[in-house]
Amino acid sequence: MNTAGAPEPHPTAVYAERMERARQQMEAEGIDVLLLSLGLDLPYITGYHAMPLERLTMLVVPRDGEARLVIPRMEAARVVPQPGVFQVHPWGEMENPVEIVAGLAKAAGPAEAVAMGDQTWARFLIELLPLLPNARYSRADVVTSMRMTKDAAEIAALRAAGAAVDRIAAQLQAGEIPLIGRTEAAVSADLSERIIAEGHQVVNFAIVAAGPNAASPHHSASERVIGRDEILLCDFGGTMNGYCSDITRCVYLGTPPAEIAEAYAVLHEAQHAAAIAGTVGTPCEEVDRTARRIITAAGYGDYFFHRTGHGIGLEGHEDPYIVEGNSLPLAAGHAYSVEPGIYMEGKWGMRLEDILVATADGPLPMNVVNHDLVSIDV
Amino acid sequence: MNTAGAPEPHPTAVYAERMERARQQMEAEGIDVLLLSLGLDLPYITGYHAMPLERLTMLVVPRDGEARLVIPRMEAARVVPQPGVFQVHPWGEMENPVEIVAGLAKAAGPAEAVAMGDQTWARFLIELLPLLPNARYSRADVVTSMRMTKDAAEIAALRAAGAAVDRIAAQLQAGEIPLIGRTEAAVSADLSERIIAEGHQVVNFAIVAAGPNAASPHHSASERVIGRDEILLCDFGGTMNGYCSDITRCVYLGTPPAEIAEAYAVLHEAQHAAAIAGTVGTPCEEVDRTARRIITAAGYGDYFFHRTGHGIGLEGHEDPYIVEGNSLPLAAGHAYSVEPGIYMEGKWGMRLEDILVATADGPLPMNVVNHDLVSIDV
Repeated sequence: MNTAGAPEPHPTAVYAERMERARQQMEAEGIDVLLLSLGLDLPYITGYHAMPLERLTMLVVPRDGEARLVIPRMEAARVVPQPGVFQVHPWGEMENPVEIVAGLAKAAGPAEAVAMGDQTWARFLIELLPLLPNARYSRADVVTSMRMTKDAAEIAALRAAGAAVDRIAAQLQAGEIPLIGRTEAAVSADLSERIIAEGHQVVNFAIVAAGPNAASPHHSASERVIGRDEILLCDFGGTMNGYCSDITRCVYLGTPPAEIAEAYAVLHEAQHAAAIAGTVGTPCEEVDRTARRIITAAGYGDYFFHRTGHGIGLEGHEDPYIVEGNSLPLAAGHAYSVEPGIYMEGKWGMRLEDILVATADGPLPMNVVNHDLVSIDV
Repeated sequence: MNTAGAPEPHPTAVYAERMERARQQMEAEGIDVLLLSLGLDLPYITGYHAMPLERLTMLVVPRDGEARLVIPRMEAARVVPQPGVFQVHPWGEMENPVEIVAGLAKAAGPAEAVAMGDQTWARFLIELLPLLPNARYSRADVVTSMRMTKDAAEIAALRAAGAAVDRIAAQLQAGEIPLIGRTEAAVSADLSERIIAEGHQVVNFAIVAAGPNAASPHHSASERVIGRDEILLCDFGGTMNGYCSDITRCVYLGTPPAEIAEAYAVLHEAQHAAAIAGTVGTPCEEVDRTARRIITAAGYGDYFFHRTGHGIGLEGHEDPYIVEGNSLPLAAGHAYSVEPGIYMEGKWGMRLEDILVATADGPLPMNVVNHDLVSIDV
């Protein structure tokens, strides 16, 4: 139900233009009906966030018919009307909303090629399957592909969110955040407060992983107490006015031993090389390969076992993914993370992450705070 | 990624027993394979919460084969092993996890009757459809039906969470929460702080709706300033040690006019009658009818346009639903809300909600704070 951190509503013309582009894309891809529910595709083209509940909210867009937002009657008052973009179709507690969706889909045409938003609950697709027996389903690439390319206002929003987490990383590196003797969970809570204090409306995550815990890339901040002479990995981000931040910096609580300093130098070089490799036209996988080549050449290839990055925008993870196998060329306006890591199970881990936006003038970093493994003693 | 408020992990024997019951239910219902991802079914039988990300986490339970948790390699370290309950099957960034799931499903038997957890992202079902061409899909009732019946420890957890929101409602009714002159959003933030202060780990919602805004049952707290001589509806809840609270109380800022006092008397009577109607063996829809008959007889039937309640437990809304058409008889251990409302669009709205647990001795209320429309002036 949380729509905090949502972007300011746009004028209707913005949604109308996005809807029109979605319809053109449906035409180009031969999609008969587009169905959107949870996730950010729906707010992107209507301004409305569906509630993540068992009562279905679903936008039905037939290629050649009027778009209708099927919504629980008791939630209809939450919708900001967008005349000409969609009509509201409230359903009552005794109606079956999946039958309504199927009916609207069939009323406007063949309903054979159906594209559905990624995060729609499977229960609704399971209920829809027997109602549209001739349908073939695909993911709603028509909208996700539009969302990949950020316009100037979206880039400005990403930049503001990025600057906010940069300020927090600078506080960390300056020793303004007490660490030694506190639990990971306490430092995570501290970072979360700073994420809000620096202007985000929502905390998305604040991973704090010390010493061997840093070898688990998605470690949950624990009750483990942070000590001297260990590495501390902080990966945190939030949502500010609808757009996400995401940064990772590591600090060392003391003087790093040669093993860690050497690995960090490789990581730093790899991250920098991948960041500047992201020119318009470069395939996403080539950015991944750039980081991986350097880490592998230095002998750490087996310890970098995740992709180099992910797109970012209205969601923390979205297209384009910076991963082997994604040959999509970067285009101006693509926003994504570059975050290689090296993880030694049972010993230590490290990751270095910035958000970048591809532009005609080269990759534009949303994060510029010190990339070094700063030594601190707090 | 938020697993705050999760229940304390159980001993392995608890998960083993739940898995065994799930398998018995699969046998009884003729389900070949059970697939669980997001939502609370997975933690209920494994203790593990999947991360809501594009990297698939999915438990594959063949009826006669070993259960395997297909999980991104980088998240595998988060899993607490439960020997004998499931094995971990990590996948690497270059693998296709949906193909792995399909392979595991087919390796163990026919994979024709497939049950999938409700909140699984549709994108994964869409990708699975062509890989299991002979499959018929159904919702994972085998687990949701188990979750409906709470054991003594679960009822104790619901009672603790209910007592916490009762304390906040008492603060509201005692005039300890300033209202007049503050925005709905500010009061919502205040309630949210109190939800945490009273022992919850997570705030699930804090609806604050004044005057005409109260006529929208799922109103988002707004910048509207609360004034004198209006009704204020507060519907709030959180998660404490894995179990949810949910309560609604209305107060009147002044002396309620006859129109509102009369309607509230009807609402109060209807809520009380429905609450005591929830004896073991009574169909869920009969509880709904009990409230609706009284409200309809008094002439407000058109203004009570939602179901009477929903189940509650690990999730804020789960089976059983207290709604016309649900003939399921209440059983000992069923936990659910009773929350009729009356909504006059453009004028005012009111709702009164408690959580109850069906027991052999009759319905046991989790909320006992004053049910009156208390007049306050703060």
